[in-house]
This record gives sequence, C-alpha cells and structure tokens, in this order.
Amino acid sequence: MAATVHPLKTGRAPSLDALMALVAADMNGVNAVILERMQSKVGLIPELAGHLIAGGGKRMRPMLTLACANLLGYPGTRHYKLAAAVEFIHTATLLHDDVVDGSGMRRGKRTANLIWGNPASVLVGDFLFSRAFELMVEDGSLKVLRVLSHASAVIAEGEVEQLTAQRRIETGEEQYLEIISAKTAALFAAACRVAPIVAEASEETELALEYYGRNLGIAFQLTDDVIDYASDSATGKGVGDDFRDGKMTLPVILAYAHGSEADRSFWRSAISGERVSDEHLAHAIQLMRSTDALSDTIEYARRYARRAIDALACFPASKARSALVEAVEFAISRAY
Amino acid sequence: MAATVHPLKTGRAPSLDALMALVAADMNGVNAVILERMQSKVGLIPELAGHLIAGGGKRMRPMLTLACANLLGYPGTRHYKLAAAVEFIHTATLLHDDVVDGSGMRRGKRTANLIWGNPASVLVGDFLFSRAFELMVEDGSLKVLRVLSHASAVIAEGEVEQLTAQRRIETGEEQYLEIISAKTAALFAAACRVAPIVAEASEETELALEYYGRNLGIAFQLTDDVIDYASDSATGKGVGDDFRDGKMTLPVILAYAHGSEADRSFWRSAISGERVSDEHLAHAIQLMRSTDALSDTIEYARRYARRAIDALACFPASKARSALVEAVEFAISRAY
Repeated sequence: MAATVHPLKTGRAPSLDALMALVAADMNGVNAVILERMQSKVGLIPELAGHLIAGGGKRMRPMLTLACANLLGYPGTRHYKLAAAVEFIHTATLLHDDVVDGSGMRRGKRTANLIWGNPASVLVGDFLFSRAFELMVEDGSLKVLRVLSHASAVIAEGEVEQLTAQRRIETGEEQYLEIISAKTAALFAAACRVAPIVAEASEETELALEYYGRNLGIAFQLTDDVIDYASDSATGKGVGDDFRDGKMTLPVILAYAHGSEADRSFWRSAISGERVSDEHLAHAIQLMRSTDALSDTIEYARRYARRAIDALACFPASKARSALVEAVEFAISRAY
Repeated sequence: MAATVHPLKTGRAPSLDALMALVAADMNGVNAVILERMQSKVGLIPELAGHLIAGGGKRMRPMLTLACANLLGYPGTRHYKLAAAVEFIHTATLLHDDVVDGSGMRRGKRTANLIWGNPASVLVGDFLFSRAFELMVEDGSLKVLRVLSHASAVIAEGEVEQLTAQRRIETGEEQYLEIISAKTAALFAAACRVAPIVAEASEETELALEYYGRNLGIAFQLTDDVIDYASDSATGKGVGDDFRDGKMTLPVILAYAHGSEADRSFWRSAISGERVSDEHLAHAIQLMRSTDALSDTIEYARRYARRAIDALACFPASKARSALVEAVEFAISRAY
C-alpha cells in the first residue's frame, strides 16, 4: 500500500490518454450496450439520443466505472451495462439541463432542444432515464440500484436548488458547494462506487472510491465554472453562458464577496439580468481577475483534486491508479 | 370461480365510491408515504409537487394497486410504498406532459409550469421519478423494479410517438391505439401487476390483473379523448385542448376516416394548426357528431372496458372485485 500518491511530474500537460488507453477494450463493450439500448421503434428517440451520445462526449463517467473496476482487478463484464446506465442518466440530465437553461450549444454542436424542440428533449431524457433503470434491473444488484436511484434524486434536488439560487446574489459559498456536490459530484461518486460493488470489494473500498469520485466531480465542476469565464474551447459551450443566465457560481460568489462597493453594485445588477452584453461580460471577467476570483476558484479546485488523489493512496500502484490520478490532474488543468 | 362478471345493473350512475371505500384505510398509509417522500430540503420541491399531488387527483393508479392487493387477500403493507411510487411516476409524467403541451390548466387549477415555469416542472418531475425508484429499491423486489422501469420506458416511448404523430393527419387507428397503450395503459397495467407480485400470487394472476389494468387504461384514455370534445367537467382541462394542439386522437381519426371530402379538407387544415378558433372547434364537434366519431369512440372504449371486466372473471366474487368492475364502468361513464 502506498501512503501517498505522487502527482505526475513529467512536465507534459495531463490528459485523459492514459485513462482512455486503460479502458479502451472495455469501453467498446459499453458503447455496444449504449448503442443497442438507445434504440426504439420510435425513430426520434435514437435520432435525438444519438446526436448527444455519439456527439463527442468524453464518456468521463463510464470511464471512471471501468477504470475503478480495473483498479480492483475485477475480471467480469457486468459493469458494462452499469457504465452504460450511468451514461444514460448523465445524458438524460444534459437533455433536461439544456431545456432548463434554454441552451443552444453543447460540445460544440447545436443542442437537441434547438434542433428538435424542448418537448422531444424532455421526453427522450425521460426515456433514457427509464432505460438506465432497466439496465440496472437486468444486472440485478439492489445495492447498485440503491446507489444510482439515490444519486438521481440528489442530482435533481441539486438542479432545483441551482434554479432557486439563480439570479440570487445572496447565494453563498457553502450553498454553492452543496449544489455542485449534488448536481455534478453525486454522479461521479456513484459511477466510481458501482465498480467496488460489482467487484464485491470491501465497504472501505466502496467509500474510498466514492470519495475519489465526489472530489473529482467537485474539482471538475469548479474548473468548468472558471472556464465559463475564461475560454470557450474546453466545454464546447459559449463563454459567458453562466453570466447571462445569472448563475451563482464560485467565481461570481468570490468576486462579489471580495469586490469594492462599486463591484458589488455591478454584480447585483448583472446577476439580476440587467447587465448581459459582451461589454458587461468583459467587465465581469476583469473584476474576477482584479479580485483573484478565478485563481481562487482554481485553488479550491486544486484542494478537491488533492482529496481525490489522496483517496487513491490506499490502493497499490498500478496503471489504473496512475490513470485515475492523471484524470484528476486533467480535470483541473483545463482551466490553465 | 365465476365464469363471467356481470356489470352493475342498479340504475344508479357508476362511481368510484366503492373503490374509495374499499381502499380508504390503506390509502391513508399510501398518502403518508407520499407526503413524507415528496419532502426535500429544497423547498420548491414539496411546494411544486404538493400543488399537483395534494391538488385533487383521484389517485386512480395507487387505488388500483390497493384494490388488487385486497382482491388477493394480501395482508401486508409493502404495497404502500409501491403504490406511492406509482403515483410519483404518474405525477412526474403529468409535470412533463404539461411542459410538453404548454398546458395552462390541469384538474381545474393552473398548471405547475404556469406558476413556477417549465424548468422547475421538468426538474421536480425528475426528482419524483428518482424518488419513485428509491421507494421501489427500499421495497427490494427486483420483479417490481423490472415491471415499473419497463413501464416507465414504454410511457416515455409512447409520449415521444404521440409527439411525432401530432399534427400528422395520416396517423391511423392502429398507431393511435399503440400510443395510448404505451403512454396511458402501461402504468395502469403496472399498477395492477404490482399487487400480485407483492402478494406472491401466480404468474397467471399477474397476467390477469395486468390485462385488467391495460384494458381499463385504454378505455380510460379513449373516454378522456371523447371528453376533450364533449365536456370540460371531468378532467379539469379545457375542452378543445387536443384540437388546438393538433393531437390525433381516435375521435379525429374516425371523423377524418368517415368524413366527406370537405370534412377531410377541414381536418387537414385544423390538425395542421390553421383552424383553431372556437368556431372551428364547434365545427369539429359537429363533424364528429355527424360522422358518429364520438359515439364510435365510446363504443371502442366499451369494448376495452368489457375486456377489463372479463379479466376479473377468474377471481371469486368479493367487494374488491365489484369495486374493480365499477371502476371500469365509471371510467367509461364519464363520457355520457
């Protein structure tokens, strides 16, 4: 057992290459399940689902399930269906999120709701969500069903809480961390926890990998929130989406908390929806830089990333462990 | 065992009174689960869910679960959670349906999407759907989970198919029956099937009660479709909603199939959305009467109702059986 896990010090930028190479063969199995089970005699379902599922997502969550199973030396294939179920739940939430936010772009493509309309996105999301549960039921583990049905309820709660926090400048750091822990990190955590359940590992192992996933998820979301004010390359969404939607993300919360009275006045009107032009966005970004809100958010992300990496210390060194460490480093590196 | 089940011949109008009296005590148990499990620390969730759940629904589907369990002499309370799960699934689909249809009225009240907006309705629907699965997982029957996860996927498929059939005058009788069998009857069937599973009855009993529920569900939906052109009292929705939405329901399909060339021309433009005024609706209703489309649809509903009642013939006479028979008669009587 390694007492600590040392981050990569190769000088090259962290990437998902090691993770993808590690799970490539298994991912073919997962992709086969995904493609087979998104089918329906109602043609619009695979057409719309395929737009998003085939459309360049990283498959981050199923990769985590596969890599954690690899870490534990699990020799079977039961987790293919479960990794597909995790991806279906994720896809369903993306379809519904885009309706909720009225988004037009996702992963560099037009969103499904823009092409097929909100009704189709809502209903195909419901279909994928149901299909996810059918896959879990086929696998037959009540423990997995418990973890993923609970994660789904927590995600929905987090999304509703985010909705109520939207355009509310009073939203604080603690509430924000609660929201992203629910809406984003819960599924990362569940995706990782599925592996030790299937591998029949100890409760301690379950908790370690869930902790890894949860902290990675928070680091991932914090980085996404920085990217929304810094670059439009990584998420395929436009820069400034959160700003225009009046979303209270950590960069805004910190810039507001540490800003001058004039800054705070700007943020109040911006978040309430009265300052949404490109000039206002540029000013917002400038305020974030002057208050160190972006670098402080990156610092937060690093802290959660550190926790995720530390959670792997109880596992012996392996390709899987290195790949899982690098996945964390990749997650936060996207904001550099 | 009775070979046939005779409908009530009392002269009084059929009602749900017998069903409600039969399950009253059990329904208190179900309501307690519903109220407890729609709670969340995110206040908007119980607020929005409560608007619909507390708001005067008949609780038809959980009543069916309870009455079928009573029919089988099941002495336990496991089905309370499952009946609550069925109601949560139903409520989630109503929330999403109202978003999909842009509805403003439901059960005589303003819809949740009108009050809290589409985003909240989508997300609270997702929450209730997840909560339904959590309840099923707590019960722990993989068989129930299989039946209800499959029903949920079928419902979503039916809803998407209905969406693709909307404003398409070519939609035929067969496709329409397939749509309502999925979007409405699948949950009635599953609600009934849950009882014999919990009561550990035979496969034959499961299939009989599923058949009962499926046919009742189809009769119920056909009657709703008639009511949408005949009265605004029973569903609490406005009359003519389907007409304005260009929904291809059986009354329209029959009126179009049996209409003159002039009628058919009217229907083509009406369904495509070019004839949506009150005068057009009045003309549509008049065409339905002249082509017997409404009475023919009622005749269809009677046929499915007959099948539902026949499915009960294999059970000995009991209060529960009589109540389930009268529920069918009530379902179709709403159109008289």
